[in-house]
Amino acid sequence: LKFSEIGEFGFIDSIKGQCDIPVKGVIKGIGDDCSVLSSRSGRVLLFTTDMLVQDIHFMISKIPFYQLGRKAVAVNMSDIAAMGGRPLVCLISLAIPVETEVEAIQELYRGMRDICEKHGLAIGGGDTVASPDKLVINISVIGDARKNKVLYRSGASPGDKIYVTGYVGDSIAGLKILTNEITPPEGMGSYFIKAHNEPIPLVETGRNIAASGLASAMIDLSDGLLSDLRHICEESRVGALVFAEKIPLSPELKLLAGSAVFNPLDLALTGGEDYQLLFTVPAENEQGIEKLFKEHDLTPPHHIGKIGQGPGIRMKKADGSIEELQPKGFNHFNRNQRQDYEQGVLDSH
Amino acid sequence: LKFSEIGEFGFIDSIKGQCDIPVKGVIKGIGDDCSVLSSRSGRVLLFTTDMLVQDIHFMISKIPFYQLGRKAVAVNMSDIAAMGGRPLVCLISLAIPVETEVEAIQELYRGMRDICEKHGLAIGGGDTVASPDKLVINISVIGDARKNKVLYRSGASPGDKIYVTGYVGDSIAGLKILTNEITPPEGMGSYFIKAHNEPIPLVETGRNIAASGLASAMIDLSDGLLSDLRHICEESRVGALVFAEKIPLSPELKLLAGSAVFNPLDLALTGGEDYQLLFTVPAENEQGIEKLFKEHDLTPPHHIGKIGQGPGIRMKKADGSIEELQPKGFNHFNRNQRQDYEQGVLDSH
Repeated sequence: LKFSEIGEFGFIDSIKGQCDIPVKGVIKGIGDDCSVLSSRSGRVLLFTTDMLVQDIHFMISKIPFYQLGRKAVAVNMSDIAAMGGRPLVCLISLAIPVETEVEAIQELYRGMRDICEKHGLAIGGGDTVASPDKLVINISVIGDARKNKVLYRSGASPGDKIYVTGYVGDSIAGLKILTNEITPPEGMGSYFIKAHNEPIPLVETGRNIAASGLASAMIDLSDGLLSDLRHICEESRVGALVFAEKIPLSPELKLLAGSAVFNPLDLALTGGEDYQLLFTVPAENEQGIEKLFKEHDLTPPHHIGKIGQGPGIRMKKADGSIEELQPKGFNHFNRNQRQDYEQGVLDSH
Repeated sequence: LKFSEIGEFGFIDSIKGQCDIPVKGVIKGIGDDCSVLSSRSGRVLLFTTDMLVQDIHFMISKIPFYQLGRKAVAVNMSDIAAMGGRPLVCLISLAIPVETEVEAIQELYRGMRDICEKHGLAIGGGDTVASPDKLVINISVIGDARKNKVLYRSGASPGDKIYVTGYVGDSIAGLKILTNEITPPEGMGSYFIKAHNEPIPLVETGRNIAASGLASAMIDLSDGLLSDLRHICEESRVGALVFAEKIPLSPELKLLAGSAVFNPLDLALTGGEDYQLLFTVPAENEQGIEKLFKEHDLTPPHHIGKIGQGPGIRMKKADGSIEELQPKGFNHFNRNQRQDYEQGVLDSH
C-alpha cells in the first residue's frame, strides 16, 4: 500500500490509536488544532526541535525505519536532557515521498512511539505532508524542569572542571563504517553502527545532574565534543583546557583504530552525534558530583579538562605539550568540511 | 554569498541579533539546547506544528521569501487562534539547499521575524540543516490559554449555529491563478494572490470568541471549509446542514468566477488555506456572539448553517433542495485529488 493510495487522513487514522500514550497533564494529544498541556507553577517549560533530512542525516538503506523513528525523537530528548529537563510532549512532522510504502512509515511511527512511551512522552500531533522526493522528519519536544534547576550553556566559570558522561567517537566511527570510509574487522561493525543508529538520550542522568545543583553548565554532544565545548565557552565567555589522555574512548574504538589506522582521538573530538552530556562543575563540587553518580548507580563521569579564562580551547597532550585547537564541527553546508552522508550524495549532482 | 560558504553557525550568527524579540516569560530564546519559558498556573499550554515543502506547498518562483517566511509562521498561529490561545514562542527548522543565496534565507527570516514581533512571539531557536534539493520549512508554535477557555473541535451539539469569520475561496483562487489554471482579468490577480500568499492569522478574534465562553467548538480553515467542518462533526459526533447561499464569497471572487466560468461556491467549499475561523454557537448565544463581534469592532461573522444529529454534512441549495455532501479536502498524496503545486511538479517525474 502506497501513501498515494491511503492519503494523509487515512494514514493518521491508521496510527492514531497507537499514539495515544496517557501522560499526566496532557489534556489533548492528537486530534485538534493544537495539543493541550496543563501548566504547573514553579516549573519552566523547555522547547527544542530537530530536523532530519534523507541523504543528509540518514540514508534509507543504512538505517531501519524503526530505528530512524526512535533516533529522530531521541536526539530531541537529548536536548531536553542537556537542560536537566523532563520531556513531556512530542510533535511529529513528516514530509513523505508519495510512493513510500505505508508500512515503512508505520514502522517509523512504531520507533517514535516506543521511545515516547518508554520515557513517558505524549505524542501531541504533528503534520503529515507529501514530499517530491526526500523523506524529511522534524520533531519538536516540549519538556519542563524545576524553575531554578535548569542548566544553561552559559554558567561555566574559570576553575570549573569539565566532565563527559561516557565514550565519544563511536557514533562517527559507525557513520564511517556505514559509508564505507572505514572497513571494520569481521564482527566489529555492529557495535559502532548501533552507536550511530540507536543513540540513548541521557534524560535521567541530565535530570540528576541538574537537580543536584552541583553543576554550572551543560550541553549534549551532537555537533562534536570540541564544537559543543566551544558553545559552552562562547556562551559562558570562558576558555577551556582539555586533557587528551582523559577523553573516554571505548575499547572497541581503540581496537578499530588499530586495525583501520586512524587516530581515535580525532574522531572523538570532532565526530558528532554521541549524545553524551558534557557538563562543568565548580571545583568545590567535584566530590559531590562523583558521589551523585555513585548514588544513582551511574557509570562515573570522565573528568576531561578544566575551564580557564580563555578565549579558545587548548589541549594538553600525552607528552605534556599544549596545542591551540581550532574547533571543528559539522558544517553541513560546506562540501569540504562534510563528514556525512551528503558527501557522496551531493557530489553526484 | 551561498549557504555552502557561510555554514549553519555563520548563518545563525547573522540572524541571531534580529531574532531577539523580548517576550514576557521567555527566559531563554535562541542560543541553548532548548528555549525556556516560565509557566503560569491557571493556564494551559498549546502546541502546534506545520511543515511547508518546496514544490508541494509553495514554489520559489510564486512567492517572495519574505512572504513565505511570514506565511509559514502565520499558518501555525492560526492553529493557536483556533483554540482561542495566545501564541508565545516559535521554533524554526529549515532544510536549505546548499546553493541557496544567504540573502534569500535572511529575507525568509525577516518575514518570520516581523510577524512574530507583530504578535509578540519569541523566536525560541530551531534547527538549520542542509537539504539535497528542496527547501523545507517546519515551524512549531507554543502558546497558552486560560484553563477553561480553550475551544476544541469536539464541543459542538445538535442545534448549534455554524459561523465563519469571513470570505472563503479567495486563497484557492489565488493558487489557481499562480498555477495558470485560472487567467484573471487585467488587474484582478493581485487580490487573490495576496489572499493565498499573505494569510492573516485571526489571533485576536479567536481569543475573543474563546474568552467570551459563547462558542462550543472552533477550527481554522486550512484544509477547506467542508473538510474542516467534517473534523468538527467527527470529533463532536454530530452532523451539519450548510446553507449554500450563506457561504461568504468576496465580490472579487464572484466577479472572477463570472469572467473565468467556474462555480465560486465549489472553490469556497473545497479550497483550502483560507485561515478564517469556523465556530459553532449554541442557539441561546446567537445574539451574544453577534454583540461580541460588534463590541470588538470586528466584521460580523457569517451564519452559514447549523449542527444536526448527523452523521454527515448536507447542503441546502438556493432552490430549497437538500444535497448530501461528500467532503473533499486536499489529499496531498493522491495525484488525482491534488489541487496544488505538486500536480505540475510531480507529473514531470
